[in-house]
Amino acid sequence: MDAVNLNAMLDRFTEHWQPKRIAQINDYDVRIVKVQGEFTWHQHADTDEFFLVLYGELTIALRDRDVVLAPMELFVVPAGVEHCPRAAVDTGVLLLEPRSVVNTGDAGGEMTAVVENLA
Amino acid sequence: MDAVNLNAMLDRFTEHWQPKRIAQINDYDVRIVKVQGEFTWHQHADTDEFFLVLYGELTIALRDRDVVLAPMELFVVPAGVEHCPRAAVDTGVLLLEPRSVVNTGDAGGEMTAVVENLA
Repeated sequence: MDAVNLNAMLDRFTEHWQPKRIAQINDYDVRIVKVQGEFTWHQHADTDEFFLVLYGELTIALRDRDVVLAPMELFVVPAGVEHCPRAAVDTGVLLLEPRSVVNTGDAGGEMTAVVENLA
Repeated sequence: MDAVNLNAMLDRFTEHWQPKRIAQINDYDVRIVKVQGEFTWHQHADTDEFFLVLYGELTIALRDRDVVLAPMELFVVPAGVEHCPRAAVDTGVLLLEPRSVVNTGDAGGEMTAVVENLA
């Protein structure tokens, strides 16, 4: 692979809630996604999920609190913990998770996305 | 866990080539490290290794080329590929790799570091 520039990758798409694979580490994906509005409550029973905000502001609603992430802030949602991401403004996020992870976890539904490969 | 601010974590230490764990995802570590000067040639036989530059400039020498990373640029060194990181100026890097990974890989030697936990 070559070096990957995050800003150049972010410039390649505008749609929200459609994660893109930009690199692979063993059986893990590095994905970027743009988000705005509210996602859907879901969990990933078998895996933690890593969020790093690149621009904008991401709120990860948990059942007992909200976690608010500014740029260069990260959070790991533990396996089995229900969460619902939302963003008031266009927000860019770097995700790290096993390649098998589906964005809507156990919830499914119309926001379920196929991960496009930009790598 | 709480949200982790990368800049706040970087402000907590100054030493070079001493990776710090700032989060865990399943059996993977998210680490940050400050580097300056030249590391040692090594490889990780069993795992890929992810580098994301946060500030400064990192050169990852491979046997056939150099990969130069500016801030917000990332690279994955494949398993079994010899590499030698170096940086002319103080540089901050985010690393992602299995928790078992030792920084000097197969090379060992005096630059081998215990990963301190900042999480």
